[in-house]
Amino acid sequence: MTVDVGIIMGSQSDWPTMKEAALVLDQLGVSYETKIVSAHRTPDRLWAYGRAAAGRVQVIIAGAGGAAHLPGMMASKTRVPVIGVPVQTKALSGVDSLYSIVQMPKGYPVATMAIGAAGAANAGLLAAGILALQDAGLAARLDAWRAALSDSIPEEPKDE
Amino acid sequence: MTVDVGIIMGSQSDWPTMKEAALVLDQLGVSYETKIVSAHRTPDRLWAYGRAAAGRVQVIIAGAGGAAHLPGMMASKTRVPVIGVPVQTKALSGVDSLYSIVQMPKGYPVATMAIGAAGAANAGLLAAGILALQDAGLAARLDAWRAALSDSIPEEPKDE
Amino acid sequence: MTVDVGIIMGSQSDWPTMKEAALVLDQLGVSYETKIVSAHRTPDRLWAYGRAAAGRVQVIIAGAGGAAHLPGMMASKTRVPVIGVPVQTKALSGVDSLYSIVQMPKGYPVATMAIGAAGAANAGLLAAGILALQDAGLAARLDAWRAALSDSIPEEPKDE
Amino acid sequence: MTVDVGIIMGSQSDWPTMKEAALVLDQLGVSYETKIVSAHRTPDRLWAYGRAAAGRVQVIIAGAGGAAHLPGMMASKTRVPVIGVPVQTKALSGVDSLYSIVQMPKGYPVATMAIGAAGAANAGLLAAGILALQDAGLAARLDAWRAALSDSIPEEPKDE
Amino acid sequence: MTVDVGIIMGSQSDWPTMKEAALVLDQLGVSYETKIVSAHRTPDRLWAYGRAAAGRVQVIIAGAGGAAHLPGMMASKTRVPVIGVPVQTKALSGVDSLYSIVQMPKGYPVATMAIGAAGAANAGLLAAGILALQDAGLAARLDAWRAALSDSIPEEPKDE
Amino acid sequence: MTVDVGIIMGSQSDWPTMKEAALVLDQLGVSYETKIVSAHRTPDRLWAYGRAAAGRVQVIIAGAGGAAHLPGMMASKTRVPVIGVPVQTKALSGVDSLYSIVQMPKGYPVATMAIGAAGAANAGLLAAGILALQDAGLAARLDAWRAALSDSIPEEPKDE
Amino acid sequence: MTVDVGIIMGSQSDWPTMKEAALVLDQLGVSYETKIVSAHRTPDRLWAYGRAAAGRVQVIIAGAGGAAHLPGMMASKTRVPVIGVPVQTKALSGVDSLYSIVQMPKGYPVATMAIGAAGAANAGLLAAGILALQDAGLAARLDAWRAALSDSIPEEPKDE
Amino acid sequence: MTVDVGIIMGSQSDWPTMKEAALVLDQLGVSYETKIVSAHRTPDRLWAYGRAAAGRVQVIIAGAGGAAHLPGMMASKTRVPVIGVPVQTKALSGVDSLYSIVQMPKGYPVATMAIGAAGAANAGLLAAGILALQDAGLAARLDAWRAALSDSIPEEPKDE
Repeated sequence: MTVDVGIIMGSQSDWPTMKEAALVLDQLGVSYETKIVSAHRTPDRLWAYGRAAAGRVQVIIAGAGGAAHLPGMMASKTRVPVIGVPVQTKALSGVDSLYSIVQMPKGYPVATMAIGAAGAANAGLLAAGILALQDAGLAARLDAWRAALSDSIPEEPKDE
Repeated sequence: MTVDVGIIMGSQSDWPTMKEAALVLDQLGVSYETKIVSAHRTPDRLWAYGRAAAGRVQVIIAGAGGAAHLPGMMASKTRVPVIGVPVQTKALSGVDSLYSIVQMPKGYPVATMAIGAAGAANAGLLAAGILALQDAGLAARLDAWRAALSDSIPEEPKDE
Repeated sequence: MTVDVGIIMGSQSDWPTMKEAALVLDQLGVSYETKIVSAHRTPDRLWAYGRAAAGRVQVIIAGAGGAAHLPGMMASKTRVPVIGVPVQTKALSGVDSLYSIVQMPKGYPVATMAIGAAGAANAGLLAAGILALQDAGLAARLDAWRAALSDSIPEEPKDE
Repeated sequence: MTVDVGIIMGSQSDWPTMKEAALVLDQLGVSYETKIVSAHRTPDRLWAYGRAAAGRVQVIIAGAGGAAHLPGMMASKTRVPVIGVPVQTKALSGVDSLYSIVQMPKGYPVATMAIGAAGAANAGLLAAGILALQDAGLAARLDAWRAALSDSIPEEPKDE
Repeated sequence: MTVDVGIIMGSQSDWPTMKEAALVLDQLGVSYETKIVSAHRTPDRLWAYGRAAAGRVQVIIAGAGGAAHLPGMMASKTRVPVIGVPVQTKALSGVDSLYSIVQMPKGYPVATMAIGAAGAANAGLLAAGILALQDAGLAARLDAWRAALSDSIPEEPKDE
Repeated sequence: MTVDVGIIMGSQSDWPTMKEAALVLDQLGVSYETKIVSAHRTPDRLWAYGRAAAGRVQVIIAGAGGAAHLPGMMASKTRVPVIGVPVQTKALSGVDSLYSIVQMPKGYPVATMAIGAAGAANAGLLAAGILALQDAGLAARLDAWRAALSDSIPEEPKDE
Repeated sequence: MTVDVGIIMGSQSDWPTMKEAALVLDQLGVSYETKIVSAHRTPDRLWAYGRAAAGRVQVIIAGAGGAAHLPGMMASKTRVPVIGVPVQTKALSGVDSLYSIVQMPKGYPVATMAIGAAGAANAGLLAAGILALQDAGLAARLDAWRAALSDSIPEEPKDE
Repeated sequence: MTVDVGIIMGSQSDWPTMKEAALVLDQLGVSYETKIVSAHRTPDRLWAYGRAAAGRVQVIIAGAGGAAHLPGMMASKTRVPVIGVPVQTKALSGVDSLYSIVQMPKGYPVATMAIGAAGAANAGLLAAGILALQDAGLAARLDAWRAALSDSIPEEPKDE
């Protein structure tokens, strides 16, 4: 099967965060798959996914928390663009996840997003922006999505 | 003029960092332009660049330090993928740059790289990886670049 | 319409924090308007607000969270004093907001307040202090407000 | 003697940072005085300065490092707007100065600037922006200063 | 009136933390007074307290949060030993309080305790330890308090 | 031998910092001894020093860096007041030292000073302030030391 | 009595975290004892435990929070491998515990684990990994434990 | 070839840090090999090393900086104890390395050492401590090494 985007995450507990990426892709009509690929618990699954990625998916979105090695290790296994989402953690609030994902050495970029749900949604939007470079219809849908977001902003704040 | 990648930065002082991105693009045969676009000192230049970006460049690499608003503001003006490079700063070592770039709200992703020169080089590589999705020749050159990096690693460390 | 103070914020979710500024201005008899001006979602609104600010408002209070670009971008568009309020965030508690607002480059000051509600109230007080330089009546009301705060402090703590 | 701006600092060692504020005021034709007022070593000097401030100066710029109490204590003694400059420190790089200055409780705002020299220059500019509200000539000079800064930005970065 | 220890704090909201100090002094039979002395809201009260401290109290315990200037300002007004307790804060968890209290310049020590309730209790114990240098009865009671704490530790942990 | 103050430190490399404490005690005419007592390398020396402290010294000043266990372990062995000086470290600038010293549990206070040389000097001053409670001559010398420091502050900063 | 692993902790309040280590050892059939050994409240118990450790236990797991001196002090008293678990704290989330445990000087390693429950479980696994070097049965059980963990990971995330 | 300890590191630039581990092993008569195994640049080398580790080496020491994935990925591939050394980095001083190494999820412990050279030396000592559990001669040499370190500490600090 070929899909546009592979959404992978280190564990089931990352899904409440990462489904924000899936929701955005649904809204934009981008196909995707969702997989649990744990860098530490299923390293061979990570290897297999990385080796087969080029040609199978166009963009990979990888979410992980703590010593978050999944996005960076995936970036080492494939030239397919990898977008990393730092999942918020209990003790360090996701600063550990952020540093583990963003501070990659020369050679292996991970396109790092904000910590948590906003970052996951933005991972979906960045994936769409990348795919839109070769898909005028998607570009138009993305422009519309952005315009709708802008139009949704009221002029003044309201008491709730 | 149309180029593949626009490398923009907040000031001349960011260039020693950002030219690492240019060097990588040179090695990979990707065309680019380099511009100083200061979010605060030349906001209208930022506006104009952002408005004209779609169709003119495929990817934007934006480097900035401190209250680094350039990458995020550019992302708000265009759907073209924006890669952000946090430039190291004197007092806060670039943590201020990193937080200002990566913590974007839902709607406007910035593909954030590591702080400093490694991040700039990786910005060039990520741009290449995005462009390679529609350019088999570039994909092959990127694969070769990555293979050469791997092959350059000696088996054992040496005293210097 | 001309008012003394423009209170602007990045989103509706900043209002529970920012209304502390409005409350203080109400107590001091300073006129103000409240607007949602998102740096990323409504950049053209930001531009228009900034261009028209001088002569229309005397002071701008701008609150934002995360990659908080609103105060700094507003400071780049107008010489009117801009007071920035870092709104508390979920993962990083507002340190991201604080760094994004306070670490401005030479040329574009943002008068940064404490993170959260205390900072918003103080933004109102600072705006009043600025306006009081040319309004003796307001100066007297501000002195009275400060004296009342001092007088409200009991001599000894009490069990509750 | 009456001057527009009082530049005060905790010690002689803050002067290399704080003279950036003086330089900007010189360029803009704003009168000022420079004083060493140590919150801890000369508390009575601080008291005297604060008590006499209203009517004598229009704006106070206060720089300090470490447990930087000067700006906040000055703000508690006068309704005159106080701009705080966190001076960079050896061990904590000025994060200690920043937190000690910016995290003021409700009632006593300090308009906090960036850590170090950029913050000091911006303190001068913010003081000018406040004074420009009642001085059209200064407003024009400030606009010109800002325009000159913008115009000084080259289109492209250069190797040095 | 003369007491051994003056427990002062910036506001009523610090009392739930600071009463841990009072509890320990009660247990050890040390006399004390409790006062609200806000550095910013009641600076003249701070001045008066500091000026009269020597001879009137032997040790001062001062608790404050955020830009916590009370302990350091008190230390600048009197040679009486000042023990500082950083009160936990909402956004920055008391790191702001800690840095504002501990990073004092040469000349004005504040004996800084841990953030929050443990720090307040320890402030009481340190005050007692200081007073015990000239009070053999108190020294014996402090030794007994410490021995009782040690004796209260069970050999093994238990499920609860 | 009996001295007023015991200055102990974890290693020879702490001495350039800790001699600031000795210098202050020299100026104030307070007797002291200096010892290397490493919590980890000479734990039995630590034990012996702690057991014999009460009656032999009045105050202990303990400096250490990194996982700085010396001040806290000394506080667990004696009721004599322990003043802790966090020595600056290479990687973490002394934040590790600070947290290891200041975050003591209930029962064992360490009077924590600023990181580095200022903290060491202040440790000497706090020791003097404690001893001055029972020594009117020392109280007068400490008052004079403080007055001289205040008097040394010039009215205005000077270019150097 | 001789057991394979000594699980020690600073207080009863660490047990909910530390029992994760005990659970893992139960699953792997490794014998252990659990003791409360407070570095500060029961220093002599620490001394006695450390002196008797070699020959009595093979590995020590030590958990503590705040100024967490237990693991490092134990490492100074015995050559038996010490595994440290930073317990999460209220104000600083366990960063204080982590720095106090991990930043040991040359000579006295503490094998530091992640903050909190995951770290405690991993302490049990590392102890087992060390013991498995001389126990083929345990090695096989550890391999099986790891394989079972890997096998428990589903292919795809599920809504809950 | 079989050696006791495998010292691996992410790049040649880690060697000046990591040779501290080798030096300690030399002093203790423990055999070792040194390899460059980059998690990102030579992931297959990492895989191969991890798969063959059990039976070939008894302990692995892994040093890496930044997004330091080598120790954690190695821990996921083998039950052999892995000791991680966070190498100091330019922008974030090794806090990024530390968080990436220590914050491992349940199942895959990395015995994390201090940042930099002290951590590397301690990695050698911990490896020796583990091996000493089954080698009485090594245990004696380790005891002697520790005793010599203790004996080297002078009683008093000296001016240099």
